[in-house]
Amino acid sequence: MKGSETKERLLRIGLDQTSVHGLTGVTLGQLASATGMSKSGLFSHFRSKEQLQVDLLDVVAQLGDRVIVEPAMRAAEGLPRLIAVVDLWFGWSRRAGLSGGCPVAGAMFELDDIDSDVRAHAAKIEARWREQLSTFVLEARFLGHLSEDIDVDQFVWELYGIYLTHHVSSRFLRDEDAGARAKAAFDGLIQRHQPPPRQE
Amino acid sequence: MKGSETKERLLRIGLDQTSVHGLTGVTLGQLASATGMSKSGLFSHFRSKEQLQVDLLDVVAQLGDRVIVEPAMRAAEGLPRLIAVVDLWFGWSRRAGLSGGCPVAGAMFELDDIDSDVRAHAAKIEARWREQLSTFVLEARFLGHLSEDIDVDQFVWELYGIYLTHHVSSRFLRDEDAGARAKAAFDGLIQRHQPPPRQE
Repeated sequence: MKGSETKERLLRIGLDQTSVHGLTGVTLGQLASATGMSKSGLFSHFRSKEQLQVDLLDVVAQLGDRVIVEPAMRAAEGLPRLIAVVDLWFGWSRRAGLSGGCPVAGAMFELDDIDSDVRAHAAKIEARWREQLSTFVLEARFLGHLSEDIDVDQFVWELYGIYLTHHVSSRFLRDEDAGARAKAAFDGLIQRHQPPPRQE
Repeated sequence: MKGSETKERLLRIGLDQTSVHGLTGVTLGQLASATGMSKSGLFSHFRSKEQLQVDLLDVVAQLGDRVIVEPAMRAAEGLPRLIAVVDLWFGWSRRAGLSGGCPVAGAMFELDDIDSDVRAHAAKIEARWREQLSTFVLEARFLGHLSEDIDVDQFVWELYGIYLTHHVSSRFLRDEDAGARAKAAFDGLIQRHQPPPRQE
């Protein structure tokens, strides 16, 4: 196997472990034993545990692009695309084949009190995602699907809340109503930002 | 020092570590070195790492009662008390003197994919808190401060979302607007569940 293929395979296994145990739950030692490699063999792919965690976060971002953003782009621009992206975002880790929850959501609680390059990298990935969501909201506003006077940051902030409760509700509480509750909350959010009816 | 005092002190230190590193980040070994006790000395207080984690969750619940529920009870029953409890809940871990975030919020992302007695105990504590919040909402409805046809579970579900984004926003993103955004979202939630104006 080529070096790049080995690294890819290591990251895939590491990502699955991250989704279950969090970023700090994945260690080079565990990854070595899971793949049957020596720890020194691993060190040729990742200089440090921190480098492994940063690489894992990049893989999460790529995976999210592939399973959330790319398919959402097939929906019509504006509100239909925003609805599609939310549909694909909620519960995405399961559909991406991961054994656990969203590694970024986990990282936001795991790394909040720890200053490190890994935290900074997670913050960058989170910021890019928030910007992505804001773009979809702005497009929906531009096309007149959402109210002109929408506060985009507040809208995305509240949408994040629905995502996080849905994560807790579906994964931690294993509540069968999680999907329906998230839908009701998101429908309400959209409803509250409808443009005024057009003057005939 | 009496055995019960030592245990209390150990739990206080362990709780602070939990708020920063999560439940799985606290180990008997670390706690031993932080307190200068031997690991075998610790074993006389906690049978296992799991027992320590369960005890830590109980301490979180007691602390939450003291810094959130008890002071909120001094507000007038109904909506004023619900508003007081939300005010005291958001950002409570800092006011309780912890170095990190809310250990229960952390646990809901940390333990979601791990079946264990600790997870079951965290779920029990979370359920009790959700019931507590529901009671405050029900009282506000009973007193006519919130609409008769409020869906209490959905209301609490959405309130949880505001709490979780506020946690991320204030702790992970260190966004200065976190408090204002949470207030706008909560005010909106209350506003949407206002009782209809009384018929004169």
